[in-house]
Amino acid sequence: MKVKEVPENTLERLVIYLKVLENLDTQGIDSISSEELARRCGINSAQLRKDLSFVGTLGTKGVGYNVKSLKFSLKRFLGRSQEWNMVLGGINSFGIFLLENKELQKEGFYFMAAFDTNDSNIGKIYNGVSVYNLDQLSYVVKAIRVDIGVIVAEENPEEYLEAFLNHGIRAILNLSKVPLFPNEKNIKIENFSFSMGLTKLSYFLSK
Amino acid sequence: MKVKEVPENTLERLVIYLKVLENLDTQGIDSISSEELARRCGINSAQLRKDLSFVGTLGTKGVGYNVKSLKFSLKRFLGRSQEWNMVLGGINSFGIFLLENKELQKEGFYFMAAFDTNDSNIGKIYNGVSVYNLDQLSYVVKAIRVDIGVIVAEENPEEYLEAFLNHGIRAILNLSKVPLFPNEKNIKIENFSFSMGLTKLSYFLSK
Repeated sequence: MKVKEVPENTLERLVIYLKVLENLDTQGIDSISSEELARRCGINSAQLRKDLSFVGTLGTKGVGYNVKSLKFSLKRFLGRSQEWNMVLGGINSFGIFLLENKELQKEGFYFMAAFDTNDSNIGKIYNGVSVYNLDQLSYVVKAIRVDIGVIVAEENPEEYLEAFLNHGIRAILNLSKVPLFPNEKNIKIENFSFSMGLTKLSYFLSK
Repeated sequence: MKVKEVPENTLERLVIYLKVLENLDTQGIDSISSEELARRCGINSAQLRKDLSFVGTLGTKGVGYNVKSLKFSLKRFLGRSQEWNMVLGGINSFGIFLLENKELQKEGFYFMAAFDTNDSNIGKIYNGVSVYNLDQLSYVVKAIRVDIGVIVAEENPEEYLEAFLNHGIRAILNLSKVPLFPNEKNIKIENFSFSMGLTKLSYFLSK
């Protein structure tokens, strides 16, 4: 099947549909109308149907969507029917929290190794994940497949990004306070920090 | 000064400019051309100049932007020159991490109280912040101004959202795994979860 390229805003919404459907499934809800699903996702049903046309899934008129079936279609479409290997860049309380977070493992995202540039952190183990010196990244990427680099370092996030990209890691979740936009093509970076989320709220409140 | 309404995508970029400028300032960089600033923010300089026209700040031809001055203009514009009071919804390891995070305080975001619905958590204190039963929210909002509600509860995030909105909290950072879109007008909700960020990356990787 030839797949149309999905615009960034559509992708953002498809991810929301998946998370909302996962929650409906957990609640034991079997089917849902496009209007109700759209309402729970903060959009209108025309937009929902248009977005889902990318996935190739259609609801049944008068019945709506089967929750489990649409969830699985979205999971497959979004690359979530397989497992992904991650490495962490930076050991601090946030990094340790992520390493010890069992939720991400349940969703198929596994930390395989962590890296730091501070000698005092090297050799530590959190939830079975060892901390290596960033210099040792080349050995690790030879030994295991690494799909995603997660950056939490606050002092030198650019250093981790450079090392990750130089070693062929093409997908980056940057949770440090500095948003990063590398020049390299064919890589994908997601920037999020709590401060960025809160600043959008402070703008809203100050108007 | 009459302020034009800022589109959501522009707001997203203005927040990025602020974070990048804060980093440049920390690095001791005094001035920056619009081309270089745009590059560091992953956009082109025409877009940057257009976005900054909302803030009313213009660079000087041939000199570029003064980093400190543009940073302060953006902070003021984005409501970040004042302090904001927050409450937390849900006590789990993520919630405790946020309560103990000193970075948010440095940026002017203060947790004043935390809420849970599980009796075993009520009365605990993390980093000086007390945990109350969600039933007690009405007493807390009478005693202190609450600007922002941060939701981390995984079991019942909707319950916290409803309580926060019912008590006049208009700005919500929802970090639970379920994105929430309330019907109420004149409120602002930001939905983010690690899983949502990672799913955008898994889509990219699976193409």
